[in-house]
Amino acid sequence: MKLATLRSDSRDGSLVVVSDDNQRCLDAQSISPNLLAAIENWDNVEHDLRQLSNALNGSGSEGQPFDALTAASPLPRTWQWLDGSAFPQHGKLMEKAYDLPPMDTQKPLMYQGLSDCFFGPSDDIPFPSEDGGIDFEGEFGVIVDAVPMGTSAERAMEHIKLIVQLNDWSLRTIAVAEMKTGFGWVQGKPACSMAGVALTPDELGDAWRDGQVHLPLRVDLNGERFGETVGNEMDYGFHELVAHAAATRDLPAGTLIGSGTVSNVDYKTVGSSCISERRAIDLIEFGEIQTAFMAFGDRVRMETRGPNDEPLFGPMDQRVTQKGTAI
Amino acid sequence: MKLATLRSDSRDGSLVVVSDDNQRCLDAQSISPNLLAAIENWDNVEHDLRQLSNALNGSGSEGQPFDALTAASPLPRTWQWLDGSAFPQHGKLMEKAYDLPPMDTQKPLMYQGLSDCFFGPSDDIPFPSEDGGIDFEGEFGVIVDAVPMGTSAERAMEHIKLIVQLNDWSLRTIAVAEMKTGFGWVQGKPACSMAGVALTPDELGDAWRDGQVHLPLRVDLNGERFGETVGNEMDYGFHELVAHAAATRDLPAGTLIGSGTVSNVDYKTVGSSCISERRAIDLIEFGEIQTAFMAFGDRVRMETRGPNDEPLFGPMDQRVTQKGTAI
Repeated sequence: MKLATLRSDSRDGSLVVVSDDNQRCLDAQSISPNLLAAIENWDNVEHDLRQLSNALNGSGSEGQPFDALTAASPLPRTWQWLDGSAFPQHGKLMEKAYDLPPMDTQKPLMYQGLSDCFFGPSDDIPFPSEDGGIDFEGEFGVIVDAVPMGTSAERAMEHIKLIVQLNDWSLRTIAVAEMKTGFGWVQGKPACSMAGVALTPDELGDAWRDGQVHLPLRVDLNGERFGETVGNEMDYGFHELVAHAAATRDLPAGTLIGSGTVSNVDYKTVGSSCISERRAIDLIEFGEIQTAFMAFGDRVRMETRGPNDEPLFGPMDQRVTQKGTAI
Repeated sequence: MKLATLRSDSRDGSLVVVSDDNQRCLDAQSISPNLLAAIENWDNVEHDLRQLSNALNGSGSEGQPFDALTAASPLPRTWQWLDGSAFPQHGKLMEKAYDLPPMDTQKPLMYQGLSDCFFGPSDDIPFPSEDGGIDFEGEFGVIVDAVPMGTSAERAMEHIKLIVQLNDWSLRTIAVAEMKTGFGWVQGKPACSMAGVALTPDELGDAWRDGQVHLPLRVDLNGERFGETVGNEMDYGFHELVAHAAATRDLPAGTLIGSGTVSNVDYKTVGSSCISERRAIDLIEFGEIQTAFMAFGDRVRMETRGPNDEPLFGPMDQRVTQKGTAI
């Protein structure tokens, strides 16, 4: 089942089911007003939503036209956003390039980011200046229903209700300084973006296994291919990330858990899903950084398609812009 | 004006105005259903809430009995919780005791914590085990209305609508390990608690100046005085913390910003507002740690009263308990 959110008078938008080809949608507000409400009441609404989805896909013409690129974020806001850094190759490249000690932990890496705003897939992204080192991070993420404190990784798998694709916007110059404090990121991690369509795990078929997305994430920077990294080289699957997050807290329904920037051992062939990693590779390969961070007006496009090139989450295509002077 | 939240069928509770003596309250739901909604619509509801508050205080008997200790958290949940560490004395003691390098930053220290659950002032606090190093942190905090990205510290002061008192529950053993990753805290920072009454800044009179609370926070551990630290030794006032938080993001109305554990230069006289700091002082003074973290059944009480011993935020009195085994 594919779900999406249309913009409405509500800050949570309005819920629709989306056809297999991402071309049509049907209003689902009679079942649940929005996706956050649906995930809060998943066991009671899933059946009806799937029936509506089946009706839409069984008909060749029912519903209204849908454009995944202009949709809102499936979750325009939610109660908790925890982002991992679960691709060890990313860490290895950063450590090698900048001569950092290996990360001293036997647990998943994870930080809490702002969850009150997720931009839609074609929204302009405002930044106060170009000086922060504007960067994207192509990621996958999962949305869970309520997860009680202490839930095991095995049980956590059952709480994963939806899979999404994300861009975790980052301000690298600030982020490096913030990381040194040990406190994680505030200024270095502004609001993220989400691709327009959220998928139940069954939509990915065999590409969803071991709690990982076995599909490439294509990233284009200003029209040129930047990376085609595959989501299946995580050192912890999403179920393990969920269990880590829930070790000492109850996770509210709608909690979003991210993979961190997708990164592969074969980076020389597949590239990267963030500029920061490319800059680290520049240093390793050429002894100097050759790749600039983003400037106002630059665009980044991200899309993951299925094994037969079928649409899944829909594309993201976003431009970075200068935020107007605040009062 | 004093505001509080009574438990109700809604997860956000129901809004009441509270009398000067914290003994009576009046239902304010006809003005705003809950505190989060009120802060989201502050400019439109403040006048009516103040009128209701004046009516309550003008009458000697109007309203219903109110108990600040058994009330809910004023904000049972909100969209964003950012906690500072703005008392430099705390950092100095930790650095001295553990031979750490000085914090390498010219900005406020701040992390993002979970905001979907704030325990009320007499709720039991469940932890999965005693092994994490259970600790409290007595803090002050402010609640802002919507703050646009790039707002100056001077303008940020106007966005501070309410002042609260907090206990930032911490799991120290885990937190030390998480801090080393640079990612901030997930497992080390479970849900916080909030004292039952939120105050508009004018309620503090001269005790609210320079964006700081010039009053002592009394902390008792199992009935014995643990600290009486004063809130006015911050290196950044709350308005500066708000501006720091809003540098690269719009803050949603209801954002809660914390001071970090209250700590004073004169710690030998006033004590501390967290066990972690006391343990650091143990090391400095005696060469060994003499203070244990909390065990199941232990209680911590916190209260800040006015210059004439008048009640303000109300007391917090909480017991730590073992969380039942999750399914």
